[in-house]
Amino acid sequence: MSEPWERSATEAVRQITTGELTAEALMRSCLDRVEERDDAVRAWQHLDQAAALDAARAVDAAGPSGPLAGLPVAVKDIMDTSDMPTTYGSRIYPDHQPDADANCVARTRAAGAVVMGKTVTTEFAWRNPGPTRNPHNPDHTPGGSSSGSAAAVSDGQAMLAFGTQTAGSVIRPAAYCGAVGFKPSRGTHDTTGVKELSGYFDTVGEFARSVADVALFDFALRGEDVPDLSIYDGAAPRLAVIEALPSECTVEGLVALEEIRRSAEAAGAKSHSLDVNEDLARLADLHNVVMTAESARALAWEYDNHPELLIRFYREGIMVGRSIGDAELNEAKAEIDEIRNKAASWFIGFDAILTQPAPGEAIKGIEATGDPIFNKTWTALGWPCVTIPGGRGPNGLPLGGQIVGPMEKDGNTLAVAHWIETALAAK
Amino acid sequence: MSEPWERSATEAVRQITTGELTAEALMRSCLDRVEERDDAVRAWQHLDQAAALDAARAVDAAGPSGPLAGLPVAVKDIMDTSDMPTTYGSRIYPDHQPDADANCVARTRAAGAVVMGKTVTTEFAWRNPGPTRNPHNPDHTPGGSSSGSAAAVSDGQAMLAFGTQTAGSVIRPAAYCGAVGFKPSRGTHDTTGVKELSGYFDTVGEFARSVADVALFDFALRGEDVPDLSIYDGAAPRLAVIEALPSECTVEGLVALEEIRRSAEAAGAKSHSLDVNEDLARLADLHNVVMTAESARALAWEYDNHPELLIRFYREGIMVGRSIGDAELNEAKAEIDEIRNKAASWFIGFDAILTQPAPGEAIKGIEATGDPIFNKTWTALGWPCVTIPGGRGPNGLPLGGQIVGPMEKDGNTLAVAHWIETALAAK
Repeated sequence: MSEPWERSATEAVRQITTGELTAEALMRSCLDRVEERDDAVRAWQHLDQAAALDAARAVDAAGPSGPLAGLPVAVKDIMDTSDMPTTYGSRIYPDHQPDADANCVARTRAAGAVVMGKTVTTEFAWRNPGPTRNPHNPDHTPGGSSSGSAAAVSDGQAMLAFGTQTAGSVIRPAAYCGAVGFKPSRGTHDTTGVKELSGYFDTVGEFARSVADVALFDFALRGEDVPDLSIYDGAAPRLAVIEALPSECTVEGLVALEEIRRSAEAAGAKSHSLDVNEDLARLADLHNVVMTAESARALAWEYDNHPELLIRFYREGIMVGRSIGDAELNEAKAEIDEIRNKAASWFIGFDAILTQPAPGEAIKGIEATGDPIFNKTWTALGWPCVTIPGGRGPNGLPLGGQIVGPMEKDGNTLAVAHWIETALAAK
Repeated sequence: MSEPWERSATEAVRQITTGELTAEALMRSCLDRVEERDDAVRAWQHLDQAAALDAARAVDAAGPSGPLAGLPVAVKDIMDTSDMPTTYGSRIYPDHQPDADANCVARTRAAGAVVMGKTVTTEFAWRNPGPTRNPHNPDHTPGGSSSGSAAAVSDGQAMLAFGTQTAGSVIRPAAYCGAVGFKPSRGTHDTTGVKELSGYFDTVGEFARSVADVALFDFALRGEDVPDLSIYDGAAPRLAVIEALPSECTVEGLVALEEIRRSAEAAGAKSHSLDVNEDLARLADLHNVVMTAESARALAWEYDNHPELLIRFYREGIMVGRSIGDAELNEAKAEIDEIRNKAASWFIGFDAILTQPAPGEAIKGIEATGDPIFNKTWTALGWPCVTIPGGRGPNGLPLGGQIVGPMEKDGNTLAVAHWIETALAAK
C-alpha cells in the first residue's frame, strides 16, 4: 500500500473530496517524509509541523472544497505569508513577519489548499544559495533560486510548491531535481506580495511531479478549469527543436534532448530543427541589462541601508544597475519587444519548441545553483515553459527537456508537455 | 654552482656588464628551464627559442649596455610586439602581428634587455584563463590576468616579466605564484600599444623575484635611477595594517598577514590597525561601474563584429556597460576621486599600508583566476602596490603581504617592501 504522499495531487484531491483520504492524513504523510529526509535535503526555511497539521485538520473540519482541497503546498520564502515569517533569503529580514498574504498565496488558500511552510530561496531569489541539497545526491545543488520548492516536491515532502522565475529560477531547479516545473506566460499571476527583483521578468510559477498536477495548480490559481491535456492524443504535436550550442551544454544534456526527441518521433510527433541561436544570444545579453538595471531599483532600500548585509555580487551589481539610466533601460526593453514580435514566427508550422532546460545534470557543490542560460531567453520573451524529466546523467542525476509555447498558449503548451511525458513513460 | 637563471636580475646585469656572464648564457639557462618545466606550467603564448638566443647573442655582439643589459624579459601577450604575434588572449586575434612595439616594450629594449617571448594572458586581460598552471602545484591557478608572466618569473623561466593591472591582474598572480609584483602609481608608464580594457585603471606593472629586481625593472622603464631601498634601515617603517573582513578572506590568508606584521614588529616596525573597510567596499563597487562602462567602450569593435568569438561573460558585460551613459560613468569616477582625496589622510603617521594581496592560497582548478577584491580598491585609488611572498598555505602554495603607499611615492613604497622582505628573510 503506497503512502498518501506518493499519490498524484490530482488523485489526492479526488480522494479528499470524496472522503477516501483526509487532509490531515495527507499532511501527516508529507511531514513523515520531511522527518525522514530533512537532514539530507534541508528544503525548509520555516516549517511548524503542529501548525501545518492544525491547518489540515481545519480543512477536514470545514469540509474540504475547492480544486486544491486539502493539498499541502510549499511556498517559496520570497512570497509574503501573513502567518509565517518571510526572510526573502536575506540577512536583512531574519525575523520579518508580513501582515498580509501574497496574492498567489491567498488564492492558494482560497482554492482549498493548506500552506504547509516556507521553502529555502537564494538571497532575494537571485544568487547566494541556502542550505538545500539535491534530493538525488546531497553533494549536488538543487538549482535555484527556488531551491527548496523544487527539492521538497521532487522528494515527496510536499504535493505542490511555488517558485518564481526572473532568469531561470523555476525551470532549472525543476530539471536538476527531476520535478515538473511550469513558468506560465508573463503576467499570468499577480505578483503582489512577492518580493520584486526585476518587475519586467518576475513570474510566479509552480512545481509538481507531473504535468497534470502542475496544470491543476496553475489553473486553480487562475480560477479557471484545468485545460484539456489530451488534445494531441489524436494528432501528435509538431515540434521545433532548438539544440543548444555545444559550448553551452554538456554532452549528456545534448544526448538527453536527442533521446526525448526520438521518443516523441517514435510516438508520432513531427520535429524539425530550428536555428535561432543568434537571436537567443542577443536576448540573453538584453536580459542581463534589464535585470541589472531593475534589480538595482528593486533593492535600492536594502543597498542604501544595509549594504553590509548584502553579498558583494549584489552590491556591485546594484551600483552598476543604478548607472543604467531609464532611457537605456527602456531601450533594452524595446529591443526585447522587437525580437519577441519577430520570434512569434518561429511557431509557424509548430505547436511548441523542444529545447534544453539546463546545461546538463545538477552541478556539484551547493555554492552555486547553475547557469540560467537556457531559461533567461524564454523569460525575456515571456512565453510559457514546462520542463519534464527524461534520462539520467553520469552521476545518476535527472536530465530532461523544456517545452516552450507561444505567448498566452499555456494550456496548449501543457498539453504538448503532457503528450511527451506520456510518450516517454511508454518507452 | 648555481645556474645563471637562479641569480637575481640585479646581479646578472652586473655580471653581464662586467663580462663575467654573457646574455647568451643567461638566455640559454632560462630556455633550459623552460624546456624542463613548460609541460607542467605552460606560461608561454609565443616563444621562439632560436630567435630568443639570436637576440641575446646580438646584445653580446653589440656590447651589453643599459640598466637591464642582457636580461631575458617576458612580455604579457596584451602588449604589442613588432617582431612577435600578439593575440590579446582572444580568438579574434589568433594571427595578429602588430607593426610596432608597445611603448613599454620599446623602452625595455632601449634599456638593454632581450624580449624573450610572449606570456599567456586571460582574454583581453579580463576573464577566461589560458592554459597556464601554478608552478607550485599544477592543479591550481597561477592567478590572472597576467598568468604566464607571474608563473614564468616565479619558476625561473624568465628574469623579469610585464603584467598589467585593471582590477587585480599583477598583485594577485604574483601572490599566487610567490613572485614579487609591483603596480606603480597610475599613469607611471605609457600604455600606448597595450590593448585597452579600462583606460581609467589600466596600469603597466612588473614581476620579479625580489623587491630590488622589480625596482630595477620599473625604474629602468622610467629612465630613472633605482631609488635607495635602504632608507628605512636606520628608522623602521610605520605601518597601517588593514585586515580583511573574515568573510572575504581565508583563515590562512589572515594568519599569514598577522605573521608578516609580527615579523615586521620584531624587526622594529610600528604598526597600527586601520579600519576603512566601508570606504574600500564603496570603492570596489565604484570600480565595477567604471570597468563595466569602459570595457564596453574599449571592446566595442570586437563586440559589434565578432560577438560569437567572445565568451558570454564579455558579451553580457559589454551590453550592460553600453547602457551606462557617459554622465553616470563620470559620476562614478568623480566619486572615486573624492574618496581618493579623503583617503590621503590614511597615511598620516604611516609610511605605508600593509594588507592582504589575495584571499589566500591560489584556488584549485584553472577555470577561474581568483578574486581581485583586495586589489581593485587600490587600483581605483591608483596608489603604488607591491606584493611580497610570506608563508605557505595548507596546500603548500605561497601566501604573502601587500604593501600600499601614497600616490607617486613609489620609491618609498618599494623601500618599505624591501625592508619587510629583509625582516622576513632574517626570521
